Amino acid sequence: MAGSILGTIFKVSTWGESHGKGIGVVVDGCPAGLNMSEEYIQTYLNRRKPGQTKYSTPRKEDDHVEILSGVFEGRTTGAPISMVVLNQTQRSSDYSEIANYYRPGHADYTFDTKYGFRDYRGGGRSSGRETTARVAAGAIAQAILNSLGIKVSAYTRSIGPITINYEKLNLENIMKSPLYMPDMEASANAEDFLMQKMKESNSVGGVIECVVKGMPVGIGEPVFEKLDANLAKAVMSVGAVKGFEIGDGFKSASMLGEDNNDAFHYENSTLTKETNHAGGILGGMSDGSDIILRAAIKPTPSIARTQNTVNKANENIEVNIKGRHDPIIVPRAVVVIESMVALTLVDMIFQNMYSRLDKIQEFYKK
Amino acid sequence: MAGSILGTIFKVSTWGESHGKGIGVVVDGCPAGLNMSEEYIQTYLNRRKPGQTKYSTPRKEDDHVEILSGVFEGRTTGAPISMVVLNQTQRSSDYSEIANYYRPGHADYTFDTKYGFRDYRGGGRSSGRETTARVAAGAIAQAILNSLGIKVSAYTRSIGPITINYEKLNLENIMKSPLYMPDMEASANAEDFLMQKMKESNSVGGVIECVVKGMPVGIGEPVFEKLDANLAKAVMSVGAVKGFEIGDGFKSASMLGEDNNDAFHYENSTLTKETNHAGGILGGMSDGSDIILRAAIKPTPSIARTQNTVNKANENIEVNIKGRHDPIIVPRAVVVIESMVALTLVDMIFQNMYSRLDKIQEFYKK
Amino acid sequence: MAGSILGTIFKVSTWGESHGKGIGVVVDGCPAGLNMSEEYIQTYLNRRKPGQTKYSTPRKEDDHVEILSGVFEGRTTGAPISMVVLNQTQRSSDYSEIANYYRPGHADYTFDTKYGFRDYRGGGRSSGRETTARVAAGAIAQAILNSLGIKVSAYTRSIGPITINYEKLNLENIMKSPLYMPDMEASANAEDFLMQKMKESNSVGGVIECVVKGMPVGIGEPVFEKLDANLAKAVMSVGAVKGFEIGDGFKSASMLGEDNNDAFHYENSTLTKETNHAGGILGGMSDGSDIILRAAIKPTPSIARTQNTVNKANENIEVNIKGRHDPIIVPRAVVVIESMVALTLVDMIFQNMYSRLDKIQEFYKK
Amino acid sequence: MAGSILGTIFKVSTWGESHGKGIGVVVDGCPAGLNMSEEYIQTYLNRRKPGQTKYSTPRKEDDHVEILSGVFEGRTTGAPISMVVLNQTQRSSDYSEIANYYRPGHADYTFDTKYGFRDYRGGGRSSGRETTARVAAGAIAQAILNSLGIKVSAYTRSIGPITINYEKLNLENIMKSPLYMPDMEASANAEDFLMQKMKESNSVGGVIECVVKGMPVGIGEPVFEKLDANLAKAVMSVGAVKGFEIGDGFKSASMLGEDNNDAFHYENSTLTKETNHAGGILGGMSDGSDIILRAAIKPTPSIARTQNTVNKANENIEVNIKGRHDPIIVPRAVVVIESMVALTLVDMIFQNMYSRLDKIQEFYKK
Repeated sequence: MAGSILGTIFKVSTWGESHGKGIGVVVDGCPAGLNMSEEYIQTYLNRRKPGQTKYSTPRKEDDHVEILSGVFEGRTTGAPISMVVLNQTQRSSDYSEIANYYRPGHADYTFDTKYGFRDYRGGGRSSGRETTARVAAGAIAQAILNSLGIKVSAYTRSIGPITINYEKLNLENIMKSPLYMPDMEASANAEDFLMQKMKESNSVGGVIECVVKGMPVGIGEPVFEKLDANLAKAVMSVGAVKGFEIGDGFKSASMLGEDNNDAFHYENSTLTKETNHAGGILGGMSDGSDIILRAAIKPTPSIARTQNTVNKANENIEVNIKGRHDPIIVPRAVVVIESMVALTLVDMIFQNMYSRLDKIQEFYKK
Repeated sequence: MAGSILGTIFKVSTWGESHGKGIGVVVDGCPAGLNMSEEYIQTYLNRRKPGQTKYSTPRKEDDHVEILSGVFEGRTTGAPISMVVLNQTQRSSDYSEIANYYRPGHADYTFDTKYGFRDYRGGGRSSGRETTARVAAGAIAQAILNSLGIKVSAYTRSIGPITINYEKLNLENIMKSPLYMPDMEASANAEDFLMQKMKESNSVGGVIECVVKGMPVGIGEPVFEKLDANLAKAVMSVGAVKGFEIGDGFKSASMLGEDNNDAFHYENSTLTKETNHAGGILGGMSDGSDIILRAAIKPTPSIARTQNTVNKANENIEVNIKGRHDPIIVPRAVVVIESMVALTLVDMIFQNMYSRLDKIQEFYKK
Repeated sequence: MAGSILGTIFKVSTWGESHGKGIGVVVDGCPAGLNMSEEYIQTYLNRRKPGQTKYSTPRKEDDHVEILSGVFEGRTTGAPISMVVLNQTQRSSDYSEIANYYRPGHADYTFDTKYGFRDYRGGGRSSGRETTARVAAGAIAQAILNSLGIKVSAYTRSIGPITINYEKLNLENIMKSPLYMPDMEASANAEDFLMQKMKESNSVGGVIECVVKGMPVGIGEPVFEKLDANLAKAVMSVGAVKGFEIGDGFKSASMLGEDNNDAFHYENSTLTKETNHAGGILGGMSDGSDIILRAAIKPTPSIARTQNTVNKANENIEVNIKGRHDPIIVPRAVVVIESMVALTLVDMIFQNMYSRLDKIQEFYKK
Repeated sequence: MAGSILGTIFKVSTWGESHGKGIGVVVDGCPAGLNMSEEYIQTYLNRRKPGQTKYSTPRKEDDHVEILSGVFEGRTTGAPISMVVLNQTQRSSDYSEIANYYRPGHADYTFDTKYGFRDYRGGGRSSGRETTARVAAGAIAQAILNSLGIKVSAYTRSIGPITINYEKLNLENIMKSPLYMPDMEASANAEDFLMQKMKESNSVGGVIECVVKGMPVGIGEPVFEKLDANLAKAVMSVGAVKGFEIGDGFKSASMLGEDNNDAFHYENSTLTKETNHAGGILGGMSDGSDIILRAAIKPTPSIARTQNTVNKANENIEVNIKGRHDPIIVPRAVVVIESMVALTLVDMIFQNMYSRLDKIQEFYKK
């Protein structure tokens, strides 16, 4: 199970299972001199921890982060930063039943086939709990971006059929909505919709949108390491994400060239674009406009309804999955998507530093 | 401009500009013993070369491939396979005008900002001509997949507002449609639509779909190297792609859990799924069903209409882009998307070989 | 401070400082199904822990390893294996004096220049204590190698001027010598030499040799990823190593071709070599003979004698480094070199698995 | 046969066989704005081409390099630079005999075992001719280093038993000696020695030394990506290299700590070291002193004497290898070692650019 390391220069190595001893991450390649503390990291983890609202699992997990290395006297030293969130309860009893069958929509079957067996407790490595490590690392990435004047903001764009009205969108409302949905009217409607589906023991999907402001021009490497390609990989690597768009995305496929092109123009001596259908990326590189991307999140596969599936004895069976599951993943996944975007941006911003000889010469001039 | 190397084990290193001496690729990590010839590679290149139909640029480019290394007596040796397609005409005169302004929807501005200057002839490295190298490498990947019983088929799903009817979809019609659109009725309608928009000097986008049959179960590495995440990156790295979906994609975001889950069942002792909303991937690993993915392609940015833009003297200007441009990229991009999928699958199929100790022991038993 | 991740497929990510909260490592890419326990890892750590003999620092460090993830019911699951050794005492007071000057032969000056400041407590990240993580990961690599019939054995070849007599070399004596020097007579002489130099407050270097038995033929990738090149990097990455040799090494530079070539011959239908000047490697690949390599270790830079150096106030000063330092690194480094060799071999053995199409087809045949 | 790609940021991808169509390399990650021409690259290739003196093979190979991409109007654009040296004669007839047996000291046996068969013409991919690509790429690396005030100089330190006298060493004599041995007296003696061994149909080894002047302090990443570790890998990846040393190397293993430590001191307000036993590297990072390293080269394995070996019919046989072989590899390998050092330095110099947040902020400040 290689695959738990992300990044080319700013590298993130995650570990941990849902019901093991803990979840953790090592960040290798963080520059020295960044202010860093457990309290800061914790503010990001709090955005994804369970039990915040009635729309997430009532499981109590404190998700307290501890920094084990790489920070000295309040600043990063350049050495790997190891962070750990110990699991407080390891109730494997809740999950032993699922050891013998494959839950629909989950990775039980693919894990068993690939590895010969699996740590079935709470989904093991394929649990959404794995994203704790992504958020801890993402918090460090966001601190780097902030120090460069870049701000990444993710939020809920839609829940089931309820979508925000862009005329009422206000990014400052993100934290005011229990669903991280920054149109308060849409948010209230989505709450109603969710309550209804929870009563019906069903689950709901949605779309997360992310905006990046303050990007320098030219970040992203042509051909295979385009910025949008790397963002796509990072976002699609989050469990339950089934689609990715940049700018107008799938809508642009039915547009005409004249309408889809963004005209350049100078406004007060500053080069800008009249529109931003491209979502801030041209030729795989940032163009200075806001980067706008979206992730489609499928409904939670764990539902309390009776479902058909198979067991390891090769029998067709019916199952009722027990446990306290999120009726929707979207709100808790908002900070996860934001983290994946931040991790990718830092890596690509660093990779851009070798593009021009004159800048390298200036960097090293004595 | 790092970024022209793709892959972890099966590595592809591309080079070349639109109007330079040629386009080429080095494939490193191809196993020994694969039958290979220039004739075989050429069949793939012919699917993307210009001038095939009235819907593509009338430029004549033969795109003749030459293999320079890595093949001995008709078989790959395991050494790097270097392939080159020499450019037959290097008419830089056609393009000198664009040296001084930034075409809307193109990478001129981002290239100039990132590198300080650019090879402006025909778009240089950011030309669609770069994908020639991807297709040559992709042909090798497809040969490996075929030897393992895996078949990758891409085709046009929609052009502007015209979408195939899945009841009339027949993959055997892909090569019969001049638009690689395997519903002949939709294909004819799309031809009409295209002719109309060409008369209006406009351009059109569309959606490419790709189906993979015969995948083993368990390909893809959990967490960051999920199969769908790597497919997303590979597909999004193709110029003009603005969105990526797997399975039901964005549609799944508005579905309910009960409807989106694919029930497992045994049919004649074989484990299958009753539906395939997941598009053949569970937990980032192939589940044995067909893999289904889609790419949204924006309309060609080069149009013969007057457009607003800026020049390098910091002035707002109007431009009329000359030259013989494709009114739509989609049909020629079909084999490019297919190639990117094939390259990704080979790399992930190789990466899966280290998942289980018992299989490694069997591999090395004396 | 990127650089703490090793490996292409079997990846090891280490973290921790000498006087921080602990030292740890995450192993990503370990195949599923390997028997694994803390007790097993501990046996390797015990070989490098301080205070084993009078020839190492009398500091008491228990170096107790804990496995936090990736092992379920006694077997590896394929998920990342996170291991941690908590530091029991964090006596930064011992080291505060060295914060203000640069110890000769240490990395204090280069760290300060590269990062702007450093965690000066006990050398921080550049402490030899960092190798704890290498040994923990190396133990897992050795378990994989053993399961494939491969055995890696490192030992002390020389200490100062005392070198083992190959006629008296017996690998079974490695663990019997307090210096891990498997010629008991040389070992006794080396003990005398060491005691003398310890009395003089000086320190001593030496050479570690490593033998690998049971290697399959053909491991190592031609050109840049040769097996010996990767072994060299892995071994040279250990602090204090100043030279690396394979087979006859530097001696071969003064040999004649006729004497240096190893003649092939068949012995009882088995292809072997009459000699092994090459050290088991031809063209960068294992040739089936024993792999033999050596590492030159410089004397411990921390000595209790007065030395000239500079401080951060740009003054020339004299210093007397206090603390309980090893008079020789060699014996404790034996298991570190062994670990680096094992980690490299596993990674290269995995990389070899996609060399031949027929073997890949066999792996995936249904 | 993965393994033909070198580097993390500044990536070099080589291809080609001894008797195929040519040898080539793609350099990905070269910054834009570097002056570059075929004439410049050619000066480096001329230093390794055969037939320069009576001490190398009399084969005539012009080794004319052509640049196919990445250079526009005399400067690098940031795009991949593809270079090719076409083989002028492809006389496979000379080599057909060796198809059926394994030459001692060569990679024939390991290639056949790893890949199932081999391109036996002139050694195929394992021929020393492969290093042509390294030198072409190395020339670009040297241009980057020169633009930063860094100079890499390799030369012959010893040939068989003849070693330069450091009191007579003058780097300006490197190009004056037909053996690239910058002590003219030693060079003359080595010529005599070589002539004698050539008459005896034997071959000779030697040691190449390389000095780097002008390095910034702090290049190299701690732990696994130490500068000396990467240099070791790069140098050991050259065929026929059997050992690597930095600074005092193996000699330091028998030194005492007091003698091996280099005292820091300020001289005219500049921090220097009184000695340089460390060879310019402390803790895996450059310390500002000259970097000094050595490579041990084995004698050419192809000799005209009768040797014992085996054939593919599993028989013990005697062979007389025909052809025009170098009696010594060392002089032609000097520029190859220099190239590998230069390639490594560029990659590590780039990797160092994200060590400190303040420098990254300065780089991106608007």
